[in-house]
Amino acid sequence: MMITKKEYREAQKRALEYMEKAGVIVSEKEKDNISVADFGLSDLERQGGQILTFFNTERLSAKVIVLFPWQILPEHWHPALDKDIGKEEILRVRWGEVYLYVPGEPALQPKAKIPPREEENFTVWHEVILKPGDQYILKPQTVHWFQAGRGGAVIDDYSSTARDLQDGFTNPRVVRETNVIAE
Amino acid sequence: MMITKKEYREAQKRALEYMEKAGVIVSEKEKDNISVADFGLSDLERQGGQILTFFNTERLSAKVIVLFPWQILPEHWHPALDKDIGKEEILRVRWGEVYLYVPGEPALQPKAKIPPREEENFTVWHEVILKPGDQYILKPQTVHWFQAGRGGAVIDDYSSTARDLQDGFTNPRVVRETNVIAE
Repeated sequence: MMITKKEYREAQKRALEYMEKAGVIVSEKEKDNISVADFGLSDLERQGGQILTFFNTERLSAKVIVLFPWQILPEHWHPALDKDIGKEEILRVRWGEVYLYVPGEPALQPKAKIPPREEENFTVWHEVILKPGDQYILKPQTVHWFQAGRGGAVIDDYSSTARDLQDGFTNPRVVRETNVIAE
Repeated sequence: MMITKKEYREAQKRALEYMEKAGVIVSEKEKDNISVADFGLSDLERQGGQILTFFNTERLSAKVIVLFPWQILPEHWHPALDKDIGKEEILRVRWGEVYLYVPGEPALQPKAKIPPREEENFTVWHEVILKPGDQYILKPQTVHWFQAGRGGAVIDDYSSTARDLQDGFTNPRVVRETNVIAE
């Protein structure tokens, strides 16, 4: 349930390369703020995400998400909290290809590839294929997960206030905070 | 108080060139949806803006704003409306340089250049210089205006729901809707 400091830094650096390739302008300060999430699964290459938060105010948030080739952002949803009916989120692809899954008619031959023995952690299979310039509006509380295609992906993520630590995950092993160890 | 169809199309095309230079991925459908606003001032090169709305939901909106060299987006604010305390807006520069003016200590030697006999239409002069990767959070109801530098600018505009037609403008001659005439 952990990632080493070295793995963390390498993933940050690699994510930055993707962002720059996709034309994202990242300030010097932001370069150190790219967060690497392995969701406590210790399998970053297959399940995780690299996230740069531009801002997160009391009403709005914007992030850039980098997924490495075939990396999966695990199935989750944004619950209602206090006065908030749940985070509304719009994904807009800048670079690469993204396979997004939401509730609805399941794809017969989905593009996504999930790791072995993980079937129970992916319950929605209605497929939306997003290419550069495509966007998708995720209503509050919608269960969703997504995977990059073979070249990885860079995604603009627009939303109402993000409270990531409150997100619900289908996989009971998920821990939203990433534990980084020294070696 | 108008712009010809030809001027409109030319401004759309020019704005698209700026967006592409700045790495904005614009879908084919969106290319025709770039709106050109002259704010009824019939002086587009000096006062106006070219705006592509990615989406505008009941909670969130995202746009890309292109300003031509030294083009000014006239002074305005986003008022409270019904349950909304007013639009919150974050400007993040992708390309070029932007001189943003908000309430506060006025700049002694502002970078901006306003047209002659327009002094009364620009009342806030606290200067924020924004370069690529810089962003600024505009709280609801904040009076503001901004101008591109000599190379023009491309700006990511993140906000709560946009109700542009309800915006307040300092210049009483401003009409938010652009009238396009055939010739």
